[in-house]
Amino acid sequence: MSQNEIVLDEGRAERMGLPEAILCEQKSVTQLQLILERWRPQRTPLLLTRLTDAQASSLTSWLKDTAPAEQLLDHRTSRTAYYLPEGSSPTTSTSTSTSAATRVAVVSAGTSDVFVAQEAIRTLAFHGVSAVEVYDVGVAGLHRYMARRGAIAAADVVIVCAGMDAALVSVIGGDVKGVVIAVPTSVGYGVAAGGHAALHATLASCASGVVVVNIDNGYGAACAALRVLGLHGGRGALAKG
Amino acid sequence: MSQNEIVLDEGRAERMGLPEAILCEQKSVTQLQLILERWRPQRTPLLLTRLTDAQASSLTSWLKDTAPAEQLLDHRTSRTAYYLPEGSSPTTSTSTSTSAATRVAVVSAGTSDVFVAQEAIRTLAFHGVSAVEVYDVGVAGLHRYMARRGAIAAADVVIVCAGMDAALVSVIGGDVKGVVIAVPTSVGYGVAAGGHAALHATLASCASGVVVVNIDNGYGAACAALRVLGLHGGRGALAKG
Amino acid sequence: MSQNEIVLDEGRAERMGLPEAILCEQKSVTQLQLILERWRPQRTPLLLTRLTDAQASSLTSWLKDTAPAEQLLDHRTSRTAYYLPEGSSPTTSTSTSTSAATRVAVVSAGTSDVFVAQEAIRTLAFHGVSAVEVYDVGVAGLHRYMARRGAIAAADVVIVCAGMDAALVSVIGGDVKGVVIAVPTSVGYGVAAGGHAALHATLASCASGVVVVNIDNGYGAACAALRVLGLHGGRGALAKG
Amino acid sequence: MSQNEIVLDEGRAERMGLPEAILCEQKSVTQLQLILERWRPQRTPLLLTRLTDAQASSLTSWLKDTAPAEQLLDHRTSRTAYYLPEGSSPTTSTSTSTSAATRVAVVSAGTSDVFVAQEAIRTLAFHGVSAVEVYDVGVAGLHRYMARRGAIAAADVVIVCAGMDAALVSVIGGDVKGVVIAVPTSVGYGVAAGGHAALHATLASCASGVVVVNIDNGYGAACAALRVLGLHGGRGALAKG
Amino acid sequence: MSQNEIVLDEGRAERMGLPEAILCEQKSVTQLQLILERWRPQRTPLLLTRLTDAQASSLTSWLKDTAPAEQLLDHRTSRTAYYLPEGSSPTTSTSTSTSAATRVAVVSAGTSDVFVAQEAIRTLAFHGVSAVEVYDVGVAGLHRYMARRGAIAAADVVIVCAGMDAALVSVIGGDVKGVVIAVPTSVGYGVAAGGHAALHATLASCASGVVVVNIDNGYGAACAALRVLGLHGGRGALAKG
Amino acid sequence: MSQNEIVLDEGRAERMGLPEAILCEQKSVTQLQLILERWRPQRTPLLLTRLTDAQASSLTSWLKDTAPAEQLLDHRTSRTAYYLPEGSSPTTSTSTSTSAATRVAVVSAGTSDVFVAQEAIRTLAFHGVSAVEVYDVGVAGLHRYMARRGAIAAADVVIVCAGMDAALVSVIGGDVKGVVIAVPTSVGYGVAAGGHAALHATLASCASGVVVVNIDNGYGAACAALRVLGLHGGRGALAKG
Amino acid sequence: MSQNEIVLDEGRAERMGLPEAILCEQKSVTQLQLILERWRPQRTPLLLTRLTDAQASSLTSWLKDTAPAEQLLDHRTSRTAYYLPEGSSPTTSTSTSTSAATRVAVVSAGTSDVFVAQEAIRTLAFHGVSAVEVYDVGVAGLHRYMARRGAIAAADVVIVCAGMDAALVSVIGGDVKGVVIAVPTSVGYGVAAGGHAALHATLASCASGVVVVNIDNGYGAACAALRVLGLHGGRGALAKG
Amino acid sequence: MSQNEIVLDEGRAERMGLPEAILCEQKSVTQLQLILERWRPQRTPLLLTRLTDAQASSLTSWLKDTAPAEQLLDHRTSRTAYYLPEGSSPTTSTSTSTSAATRVAVVSAGTSDVFVAQEAIRTLAFHGVSAVEVYDVGVAGLHRYMARRGAIAAADVVIVCAGMDAALVSVIGGDVKGVVIAVPTSVGYGVAAGGHAALHATLASCASGVVVVNIDNGYGAACAALRVLGLHGGRGALAKG
Repeated sequence: MSQNEIVLDEGRAERMGLPEAILCEQKSVTQLQLILERWRPQRTPLLLTRLTDAQASSLTSWLKDTAPAEQLLDHRTSRTAYYLPEGSSPTTSTSTSTSAATRVAVVSAGTSDVFVAQEAIRTLAFHGVSAVEVYDVGVAGLHRYMARRGAIAAADVVIVCAGMDAALVSVIGGDVKGVVIAVPTSVGYGVAAGGHAALHATLASCASGVVVVNIDNGYGAACAALRVLGLHGGRGALAKG
Repeated sequence: MSQNEIVLDEGRAERMGLPEAILCEQKSVTQLQLILERWRPQRTPLLLTRLTDAQASSLTSWLKDTAPAEQLLDHRTSRTAYYLPEGSSPTTSTSTSTSAATRVAVVSAGTSDVFVAQEAIRTLAFHGVSAVEVYDVGVAGLHRYMARRGAIAAADVVIVCAGMDAALVSVIGGDVKGVVIAVPTSVGYGVAAGGHAALHATLASCASGVVVVNIDNGYGAACAALRVLGLHGGRGALAKG
Repeated sequence: MSQNEIVLDEGRAERMGLPEAILCEQKSVTQLQLILERWRPQRTPLLLTRLTDAQASSLTSWLKDTAPAEQLLDHRTSRTAYYLPEGSSPTTSTSTSTSAATRVAVVSAGTSDVFVAQEAIRTLAFHGVSAVEVYDVGVAGLHRYMARRGAIAAADVVIVCAGMDAALVSVIGGDVKGVVIAVPTSVGYGVAAGGHAALHATLASCASGVVVVNIDNGYGAACAALRVLGLHGGRGALAKG
Repeated sequence: MSQNEIVLDEGRAERMGLPEAILCEQKSVTQLQLILERWRPQRTPLLLTRLTDAQASSLTSWLKDTAPAEQLLDHRTSRTAYYLPEGSSPTTSTSTSTSAATRVAVVSAGTSDVFVAQEAIRTLAFHGVSAVEVYDVGVAGLHRYMARRGAIAAADVVIVCAGMDAALVSVIGGDVKGVVIAVPTSVGYGVAAGGHAALHATLASCASGVVVVNIDNGYGAACAALRVLGLHGGRGALAKG
Repeated sequence: MSQNEIVLDEGRAERMGLPEAILCEQKSVTQLQLILERWRPQRTPLLLTRLTDAQASSLTSWLKDTAPAEQLLDHRTSRTAYYLPEGSSPTTSTSTSTSAATRVAVVSAGTSDVFVAQEAIRTLAFHGVSAVEVYDVGVAGLHRYMARRGAIAAADVVIVCAGMDAALVSVIGGDVKGVVIAVPTSVGYGVAAGGHAALHATLASCASGVVVVNIDNGYGAACAALRVLGLHGGRGALAKG
Repeated sequence: MSQNEIVLDEGRAERMGLPEAILCEQKSVTQLQLILERWRPQRTPLLLTRLTDAQASSLTSWLKDTAPAEQLLDHRTSRTAYYLPEGSSPTTSTSTSTSAATRVAVVSAGTSDVFVAQEAIRTLAFHGVSAVEVYDVGVAGLHRYMARRGAIAAADVVIVCAGMDAALVSVIGGDVKGVVIAVPTSVGYGVAAGGHAALHATLASCASGVVVVNIDNGYGAACAALRVLGLHGGRGALAKG
Repeated sequence: MSQNEIVLDEGRAERMGLPEAILCEQKSVTQLQLILERWRPQRTPLLLTRLTDAQASSLTSWLKDTAPAEQLLDHRTSRTAYYLPEGSSPTTSTSTSTSAATRVAVVSAGTSDVFVAQEAIRTLAFHGVSAVEVYDVGVAGLHRYMARRGAIAAADVVIVCAGMDAALVSVIGGDVKGVVIAVPTSVGYGVAAGGHAALHATLASCASGVVVVNIDNGYGAACAALRVLGLHGGRGALAKG
Repeated sequence: MSQNEIVLDEGRAERMGLPEAILCEQKSVTQLQLILERWRPQRTPLLLTRLTDAQASSLTSWLKDTAPAEQLLDHRTSRTAYYLPEGSSPTTSTSTSTSAATRVAVVSAGTSDVFVAQEAIRTLAFHGVSAVEVYDVGVAGLHRYMARRGAIAAADVVIVCAGMDAALVSVIGGDVKGVVIAVPTSVGYGVAAGGHAALHATLASCASGVVVVNIDNGYGAACAALRVLGLHGGRGALAKG
């Protein structure tokens, strides 16, 4: 495999409003290195998702050895990393306290769903958008949802990460006016294993107008939120660039 | 096919507390006639479930012609019928106003789920148990559930009939102390068609201790409720007999 | 079944910005009549979806006989109807030529997918939003898509109805900045039958930020579009009410 | 992830009669530590289920180092642990010899199903209820079932753990008057792998009124049994509290 | 389609001990007529299986009109027919009272499974083998099985037709020494619909050495029985010919 | 729905060597009429596939009434029709006796698979290519295959239509040098129903280099054959045009 | 877990002609030790199947330490072991050269299927029956089958182990008179992974009277063969005992 | 397991134009060694596919120790190796620069699909055919496809490796005249995991005449390409031999 076998989609930000991102899980470390080298001349940050522990530590070592001026801002819970070539700066990810941030709520039903929620949050942060985080509001204890309802209903876009029966999605979908994006998670065992029960429950939601992304796809939910926000110029620094 | 090819489980009431019942759907009218003739000498009512429209009208005509002293108390919404041989009386089904009745609530998420709820109610009534009926409390409009919450929480056994995402099951399961029996229904289309999405959602429910029966099995849910009630002598005439 | 077994979600428009709508397919005509009678005092239009031919003609006759001052605006391709109680007027559905309309594009890959696209369009129209309709742009003839690309890229929200391989969804998803809502359709045979191949292809789309609704759920896609538009006051008369 | 991202359902015992329990499998050790710290002030025991070997030894070490006055009563076959904060005592779990205990029988078809049966038993014990344990009574050797039939038929609630064809569930369901709760197990290979064959067999059981929980969900079956027992004040110390 | 497009396997009896048989379900009446015409010169009976009502009456009329000396011995419960060209005689099917007959038992769990059992019996009879028929011995009433156990245990080959949970297969498999052939049936609804639950339960049977054929395949089970009997010269007239 | 909602792919023959064809099954008669009217000016034949009996007779009547100079060459076994606008001639389909024809063999395992084989043959004939037809060579009677082996091995492209276990595909795939295209068919019941068993068997074929198309897709197999033949100028009149 | 939690089916040989055997895969080493201790007093050999490498070496060490007079005849390819308590002798497994042995043929389609074939052979050998082994006769090279056809056709019982498309099963099923038992194997990838494609192909086999056992279940196939042989007193020492 | 249990298909090249190849994944190292020893006398190269890292290093060491004159040309990305017995030479694989090579294009949608593409390329190279490699042209960035369209459209055979939604297959299928062979890959997660979403999307492709092989089966796609090329004497040295 050589350098010219990699063709990155460098014009993606112009075309569809979202820059290229790299799904790492089934790529070899060599492939990832070639991708970073290929991206380097862009001099802008690159988002890496579903980066395994082994990949993360290999890439970190490799950069330290070969390009000490560059950084890999790695985050293990979300399995994401921001690659910062020389000349780029991590400013996008520090802008999460702007008021625009309050327009997105990321909600998770249980503690086990948090890794997916964090992938969404890190993706939003990469694009300069912060989000209200609301955890542990699964409907088996409805009062927990009720206690946080205000923050959720105030958001323009609500990303709901839920596994198992994913019942929280329907409760929120029927309760708020914002755009509700469901992320079924692979949390659970037996019929819930792999996330298909949650996926089907969200697609079959009795709440009108709920939309769904692939299982565990926190990244995709964040991108969908960015598409919604992008309609109104609210996506922060990057959208303005 | 002849008379002696039918072997009814006549001792079932003694053994497991529930008398024989006949699942009609995939039987021929001839088979059903043989079954009724075989049961006749018992001189007690027999419950028929999942009786198609064609079967019901064939049996009704046949009884009128050949055994005018007998009755088939047919009920189309629930697709059930009570066969009353000569010497039996429909008393069991009229005892539904006893106080024991208030111990069971049958809840349905939507109007389309009512045929399943009615199968449960008719099965309970056959055994002398009436139930509180609570319809149209799907969680996409949570306030509807809140408005009926008292009646549901007061019941010892709650049968919840819900299709699609079946989210109502988890909300109730996490909110009441009674025995919660979920009946996933085949209501819905796309991923919900056939009831498998609802089945998996109920099995994966985040509410502890919810139990599940087969899709559309209102009869089975009622039998399970009767097992629970039977522990305490509360099943009415039949349990006392 | 009686009148008081029907509990409509009358406060839904206030709560989540979308009024109650009735999914008719698995309901009996009697149930639908009870629902209309229950709704009647609202004196506002009610949307009916997945109305079968038999249901539509039964309801039309019944209204003509019992409430000649009311109307059922039935549309067979989309299997939708608008119920207009006395005192309501179909104005919402005639407002489709307003400029807001151009903010939504409804695209279908093939002629067979049109029934789903029409369900989306009729739902949007019910809420006073018209849409650009783009048909027959399946990617097996990419030039057809190229010819209509401008209209699609100009929309804020693009609803893409596609069965079989649903490849059109990824092509559009990677090509426009708007919110892309995929509606997998049940069009096709063999592995495509029922729409699961299309559903999985859209959920697995390589285009970032595409969102998905249930198979054939044109209604749900329209509701999601209304949620997006609702963020900015652009939903027409109803949103202003 | 920080302390205030954990929201435990502390009012659950009051509301639904069952206190919060923690499903550990897909949580990180850090998350579990935050949960225990959050629970600590309750000064009552907490049940942990599906605790992996690695999690168990990490938590044990961590408690020994940081809170030597506390205990983790770990049990590897059932993969459960009781967390005992300072001020709580393990009395609930020692009350298993009370007469109430004989009201539940936990039955397993084969030796491989015992890990699920033990999860049920440990959950019951946590709530002060002991159970008759009946192992290795798979119907391929029906005489083994016959030999233990008395103990099973005497119980008010029978929890049956069975994998593969789960035929034992139907034999017991048709033979006893008590409440029969089936727990399909993931034991087996080929079509039995994962437990779906057993799940479907139990849901399709020809015995009336059998109820089912998720695959391997011994915890859920025990909770359902506690709901049944709770109807009559028989749940021991905890229910009285 | 013309006569020479049909190629029957006329040498099959010599080669594998079982003559050609025709699966009719998905063939047109024209195709079936061509097949009978092609077979006619053989002057031996031909077995037709899964013959629909419409096909049966079309073929009967056609033979009456065009070949009045021939017969179609049609049997609706089993959906089988014996085609008797001129010169052949139905002797094979009348030899069912020979002692060899007692070597096969055909057992069904419920009345609904009888159509499959009858296909097996008619196939055996076609080859001159009669069978003990044992119906309605589903394990939910184990005593019914116990009452007929002797006849079943005495058979060399036991064909067990059972739908839903198919638990009867494991009970018999663990209780007799003979060859046990399971025929899962499509009887049931919900998870049992189509027979897959029964199929998986029989394949996963905890009884050693049970073998399985396709869902509803009474014909195949009978052929397997004939293979077993054929090992010992006991298959009657046909095997001797 | 109106005329300008139909966008045919008129340039397809130039671009990919195969002209537009219409899959009719899920289209309304109105849609098909609009399509034919739209195609008419092309003055070349159009292939219709999966045309139902009702569609075929509606279109035939409609053409007779409105365009008597046009023809619909309908063929019920294959469910295909050739639409011949005025000015076109059915010459392509009569060129099937050219020597090029012998380059393709269409093989079917059983009589029930013939409808799929005929779809392939009619598609080839439409493009001026005839094929050797080999029927009823299922491997359960291997000698039937052996007897026709020469004709099959002589072909450049072999289309094999087989349902159930589709074992014929592997036997041919391992026995000939030509291109082998498998068409799994929906023939069969139980696990074979719908054609998924055949599909998976052909995809998993132990013969190297076998390729597969969708279930029942005789049209697609013929198109693939045309792609192969098209590499060498052998596709008859159309390829030369 | 303690000694009296193990209930072996010691009367199985008398009842159904096959002694107890232990499926080891999902049992702990402790459970296996308890089982062996429980069996020890029988003083007859015990068959262990699906014994993992780790289990095998643990048990071997444990026996060496605690019961040096006993033996574990372990065989890694088949993952089986014979446990020989003191007083028993491995004679059954050495009787494989008797003439009865030639009555069974064990055939495998490819080298990867051999582990399953060996499980069947070791199970047969344990019961004093040897078998002809025929490997690598997959139908993609039909001549290989032809070369071994004689040995296969001569057997009374043919066990065919095949993964992927399992086409060999149908070829043999249509070619021999003996009892044909298919063992689908989990060999393969993609659609063949797990063995479901092979399972469905064998159940849907176009050869009449083929019977099937669970995926990879060489043990079960051997038991079925023993049932067939047992009808005629031919099962060797054990059957005579 | 011994030497004479291996039966290679040595005549395959003569019969079907493709020599034997070994699928290694589920074979033991011992089995692979026996296979190489069995092949050795052929004195021609042998292709090994899906060789794990552990197998590759074991075989390499073993050859170095026992047959230093032989070579194993191993290639880790594609998991293939060429075994070169003494007397054979790797010439076939070096002929990849002949003009025939340009007749095949191997295309991959993403970097993660490259391992499958490389298996196809290595298989082609083994047979003396080189291919144009086109990577990273997934349709989410359609311009990347457009940029490489010429090279793809010029090929006689196009092998397209794509996972997730596999939309690239339909775009190419509708855009070029050559033979298009789709290889769905197992790349992706959630609904895409395992490759079934991609498989179904390719089988349901809206582009006419696309053919499909098993998931990840780059080897099979290459063999199919060789069958196409073989029709015209273009397969290089091997086809001529």
